Amino acid sequence: MKVVIPFKAKNPKSRLSHLMNERERVEFAKCMLFDVVCSIPKSVEVLIITPERLNLSFDREVGLVVDKRSLNDAINSLIKDEIAVIMSDLPLLNENIVTKFLSQNAEIVIAPGRKGGTNMLLIKNKNFKVSYHYGSFFKHLKIAREMGLKFKIFDSFYSSIDVDEESDLLELLLHGIGKKSWEFLTSIGFEVKFEKDPILIKKSK
Amino acid sequence: MKVVIPFKAKNPKSRLSHLMNERERVEFAKCMLFDVVCSIPKSVEVLIITPERLNLSFDREVGLVVDKRSLNDAINSLIKDEIAVIMSDLPLLNENIVTKFLSQNAEIVIAPGRKGGTNMLLIKNKNFKVSYHYGSFFKHLKIAREMGLKFKIFDSFYSSIDVDEESDLLELLLHGIGKKSWEFLTSIGFEVKFEKDPILIKKSK
Repeated sequence: MKVVIPFKAKNPKSRLSHLMNERERVEFAKCMLFDVVCSIPKSVEVLIITPERLNLSFDREVGLVVDKRSLNDAINSLIKDEIAVIMSDLPLLNENIVTKFLSQNAEIVIAPGRKGGTNMLLIKNKNFKVSYHYGSFFKHLKIAREMGLKFKIFDSFYSSIDVDEESDLLELLLHGIGKKSWEFLTSIGFEVKFEKDPILIKKSK
Repeated sequence: MKVVIPFKAKNPKSRLSHLMNERERVEFAKCMLFDVVCSIPKSVEVLIITPERLNLSFDREVGLVVDKRSLNDAINSLIKDEIAVIMSDLPLLNENIVTKFLSQNAEIVIAPGRKGGTNMLLIKNKNFKVSYHYGSFFKHLKIAREMGLKFKIFDSFYSSIDVDEESDLLELLLHGIGKKSWEFLTSIGFEVKFEKDPILIKKSK
């Protein structure tokens, strides 16, 4: 079993550009990647695939492959063995969730994100092909059904939070205390204000 | 075990008032309540608590209590036996999820919603008191910790979707095919447009 994490360091998280400049967004994306890597059991191989050479360091062994092809082509070329694809912007993952996910008994296991996304995908049948972007959760279900594969939906709130938008930052600040990405957001002035419903604020630093 | 569902039919879901008039919002709220009731195993007693007399019918036995007190007071007065409190705006629940939730082995089990909400709450210790509104997930965790109770977090994407805002309607339309609330939204013109990311549109009917 190998966990593949796609990662892009060039102008990442552009939907947060009204809140963070590019330098901050790159740093933030790296922090989330770090949190995701930390949530993967040490016994499992981790491979980051990225379109550009990167300087990253982790406190465990992590493979890095530069692949300039599209996300789908890059991942499909890796489906020779059992792999799991876990997105790099899921900072609320923890080792319990990932362990449970990786131990699901099905040929295809799909963890949904909001807006029809696929946040984690476990592929145990090597004829499966991924189709990310634009409602990929439903595309992956359809592919699995059409191939007659045994599939499961992995139902998790924490793995559903891919941090793309302002409202997702609030979830990270609420639930991610102690995570590297939480510490980064806090360090640049973000915090939660509990008045009525909790809201995101940014203090100048 | 009794499942308590708080429900308010007066000007419900006001954050959707730019998309639906009050009559539609009342009907929509009732449809979601119906979907929630349908997700509760037949063997479990269901009690709806509401501040006003209501005309509702279900295809199963459902108790109805009119209680004009605050939500917290009304629910706390019911914690004499083991109860579960399930919100009425969780149309993506299904019987598997509720069954799994009700069978959790802890004195307090909390299922988070976005923005720090408590979407489902299982209370097996009758000294516990609820504190809804404004980050209640964290308030309930704190109360359980301070009382030294054995608690669990119930991690579910589908139970995390409480339909309050426009973006939640999209989730219901994506994942709720066949639900009564899904049929209602569809009947008044809502649909999902898959261009890039799926977006919510409303056609005039």
